[in-house]
Amino acid sequence: MGNFYKNHQQFYISIDAIIFGFDKEKLKLLLIKRNFNPCKGQWSLMGGFLKPEESLNQTAERVLFQLTGLKDIYLEQLFAFGEQTRDPADRVVSVAYYALINTEKYNEIENSDYTARWFDINSIPGLIFDHNEMVNMALERLRTKSRTKPIGFELLPDKFTIPQLQKLYEAINQSQLDKRNFRKKILSLGILKRLDEKDKEGSKKGAYLYRFEKDKYEMMVKSGLGFTI
Amino acid sequence: MGNFYKNHQQFYISIDAIIFGFDKEKLKLLLIKRNFNPCKGQWSLMGGFLKPEESLNQTAERVLFQLTGLKDIYLEQLFAFGEQTRDPADRVVSVAYYALINTEKYNEIENSDYTARWFDINSIPGLIFDHNEMVNMALERLRTKSRTKPIGFELLPDKFTIPQLQKLYEAINQSQLDKRNFRKKILSLGILKRLDEKDKEGSKKGAYLYRFEKDKYEMMVKSGLGFTI
Repeated sequence: MGNFYKNHQQFYISIDAIIFGFDKEKLKLLLIKRNFNPCKGQWSLMGGFLKPEESLNQTAERVLFQLTGLKDIYLEQLFAFGEQTRDPADRVVSVAYYALINTEKYNEIENSDYTARWFDINSIPGLIFDHNEMVNMALERLRTKSRTKPIGFELLPDKFTIPQLQKLYEAINQSQLDKRNFRKKILSLGILKRLDEKDKEGSKKGAYLYRFEKDKYEMMVKSGLGFTI
Repeated sequence: MGNFYKNHQQFYISIDAIIFGFDKEKLKLLLIKRNFNPCKGQWSLMGGFLKPEESLNQTAERVLFQLTGLKDIYLEQLFAFGEQTRDPADRVVSVAYYALINTEKYNEIENSDYTARWFDINSIPGLIFDHNEMVNMALERLRTKSRTKPIGFELLPDKFTIPQLQKLYEAINQSQLDKRNFRKKILSLGILKRLDEKDKEGSKKGAYLYRFEKDKYEMMVKSGLGFTI
């Protein structure tokens, strides 16, 4: 390792995690109350600094694990935020990642290190630095991507009903969808397996539970067909 | 400014520019022959290090200007590359940007500081570090984005013919398009103005020149209609 770049300056690099969740009704965002300065006591995205032994992805995975205790969840790089004064304490370039989990998974975990809370996506508080901008960009990416890739299923439990899936898409896109068309379209893709089980929470008659079949989806993609909702 | 983060480490941050061009026939990529170590003499993307007084975007603009002498060209952040050993000389996190220019603009410029050359997108040489990966990702982004946003026009001269526009879309997507359908579709959007001028290079009869009307496009978007090719 060397002196090749010694005439150049170095910077702090952080990652910030936009953690989306879905509780079968609403799209949520997981935020923490910051317990250190600057901006102690304010709501913030969960974040952390890059360490020499980590790739950016590994830092993001560590940060997510620290807060939620979860591994192997959907995590995608969003954007590098590099304005000079975005952090008032010092120059920090932050690479934002967004993650998708279902809120059940997280709520099962006891976590005493952080004050964390799920916020409804329609009532996000004012956040530190440029974190509101990060959230808005992540939401836009989630909207675009969920229409052409089956990432929505990451927000649902393994077994879900068609009405729950519809509610998810309505929550992401903040719009109402026609019930019959949605059912017809999603089932026509051939990527959902109907189980011999019903969910009786929503109605007396109950609604069949389904499971997303990843291998069927991959076959569909290989055959040149796209996923569009 | 402070000692808030002094327990954390700092890193070099670079930007690398994937510069796409179009010469009315083919999609091209502008590369430089590296005149410094590591990897001196090898083909590379144009890049540079973040300076304290610059935002990431400003670094990207500076790097692009240094090579091409051009300002105010289409430039979009692609992705932050953060693998530990991506640069063999030292740890550098690189934020990749892609730029769209038409090759005429650049070829008019005398530039003696760099050995630079346009490569056909189908015959890119082996590049240093992870630069081939950056190019592939940028190409994928260009493909996706050019179908839903009018960014393709950035690669054309101000005045262009419909066959030239079609060739551009064919080059980006590496597929043939039906001539009549393409013409019909693009003109139906109402965002191209036909000029009283013809281009006679392509045929004896000549083809009318058109201009992209940005204000018409913005009105279209405001009225809720999308751009799709």
